[in-house]
Amino acid sequence: MMPSWPTGDDPDRVLEVSVRRFVDGRFVDERDEVAAEEPFEIRVAGRSVAVIMRTPGNDRFLAAGFLLSEGVIHGGDDVRSMQLGLDRDGFPQRNVLDLRLRPALEQSERLWQRNFFVSSSCGLCGTASIEAARAQTQPVSSDASTSSSILLGLEAKLRAAQAVFRRTGGLHAAGLFDCQGNLLAQHEDVGRHNAVDKVFGQMLFDKRLPLSNAILLVSGRASFELLQKAAIAGVPIFAAVGAPSSLAVELAAASKITLIGLLRTGRFVVYSEAGRICDAER
Amino acid sequence: MMPSWPTGDDPDRVLEVSVRRFVDGRFVDERDEVAAEEPFEIRVAGRSVAVIMRTPGNDRFLAAGFLLSEGVIHGGDDVRSMQLGLDRDGFPQRNVLDLRLRPALEQSERLWQRNFFVSSSCGLCGTASIEAARAQTQPVSSDASTSSSILLGLEAKLRAAQAVFRRTGGLHAAGLFDCQGNLLAQHEDVGRHNAVDKVFGQMLFDKRLPLSNAILLVSGRASFELLQKAAIAGVPIFAAVGAPSSLAVELAAASKITLIGLLRTGRFVVYSEAGRICDAER
Repeated sequence: MMPSWPTGDDPDRVLEVSVRRFVDGRFVDERDEVAAEEPFEIRVAGRSVAVIMRTPGNDRFLAAGFLLSEGVIHGGDDVRSMQLGLDRDGFPQRNVLDLRLRPALEQSERLWQRNFFVSSSCGLCGTASIEAARAQTQPVSSDASTSSSILLGLEAKLRAAQAVFRRTGGLHAAGLFDCQGNLLAQHEDVGRHNAVDKVFGQMLFDKRLPLSNAILLVSGRASFELLQKAAIAGVPIFAAVGAPSSLAVELAAASKITLIGLLRTGRFVVYSEAGRICDAER
Repeated sequence: MMPSWPTGDDPDRVLEVSVRRFVDGRFVDERDEVAAEEPFEIRVAGRSVAVIMRTPGNDRFLAAGFLLSEGVIHGGDDVRSMQLGLDRDGFPQRNVLDLRLRPALEQSERLWQRNFFVSSSCGLCGTASIEAARAQTQPVSSDASTSSSILLGLEAKLRAAQAVFRRTGGLHAAGLFDCQGNLLAQHEDVGRHNAVDKVFGQMLFDKRLPLSNAILLVSGRASFELLQKAAIAGVPIFAAVGAPSSLAVELAAASKITLIGLLRTGRFVVYSEAGRICDAER
């Protein structure tokens, strides 16, 4: 029997992973925690409305808030029931919530006859299911290698190139470097995905794809979609100033991408494929 | 005559706005700069594929990188031409790029028969045009008021409640406060829009909408979509630890929302409707 009103209030919001941390001039193997990221599908009367990458927990609030923001519902009474969605074999899925709304709202044009709009370019778009989203990637092929000292120098170079950020403090940046740390391209944007898309778009026109000898650095966090973009462009080394999500770590491992997070002055954390950092091997 | 290959490489990426800055215990009127944010529509053979909120500049790279990430194109040769899109009167629009691809790609299922997927809940979704997106909001109605000392205390309260961020460094947070600074609800998520949707979804079920006597605080930057969500929920005061985009400032003013950015220890910047901060009036 399924719960008729799943709370989803206490799932695993933190996952433990094995990392190699660079600190005080040397690498140490450790366990670390990352924020959980999983795809979440919102259905209305059994039909898919949206798939959102989210941290599990309070999913009924997320579904209701999403439909409120979209102008589909306007009050709590507009939601008649929520239950976990079923897979093809009839088993409830914790990442799928199926809502019933007031009958008039289930017919609303806002819900079904919508254009395709995204807030920022999203690697999930175009996939037909959560499973497809997970399976969409293939491993990068590259024997590129770099070093901890090169990695530690990247952020200062990107920041020096960020003209608009210095003036406004309001932009994400993405920089592409060769494995010796030379800046190849950089873009700034209010959208983190856009900055990465601009970098890869430029490389596309320069006929430099796949980028099998390059390092991508992003100014923020490492999410699933950003890793997916890097995998499609063939980038072997992905570095982020912020922390990665659990799904970013998972995709990096599956795609054989070297994922570096929390890249700060004198320190960083390697979440996958540490072998491409020549001094990380013992 | 239209350019056949618009570069869009040097538009206004920074806009100047009038602000009231709180620093050293008092308010001063100043001019400040914010990062430009504008909707950007990608068309293929005249049909709309996506609308993305972005900072203008290098739009052809963004369009190409987006279609690359989506798996529609794979190399620069797949793009045959780009030109500015036309409005109904035949005038070119700087925020619309119309691409022609290799004929086989223009027919691809990936491009046209896609499901509706978003990376995070987006206030633009469901609108049929850029114009509609801009026009969608209506002013909040509220005589709420707060003070600089209450505002300065909010971030510490939100941070204290952020259990997962403390462990992973990898989550965005949104907190809802009453105008005396008491925390009403807070949520964390890898997606910044999700954290806000969870807060408003909870209030929806608690039957507390519209939130005409509340302050929303977000841990990151203030974007157009987040302001749009706040306007829909009726929130009169929006505060962000990060900087706002130009369109966030524009929407806050149009919606009569008090927008506060760069909320740090002892200082913040007011971008609109400073009258709701009782000690900001002279």
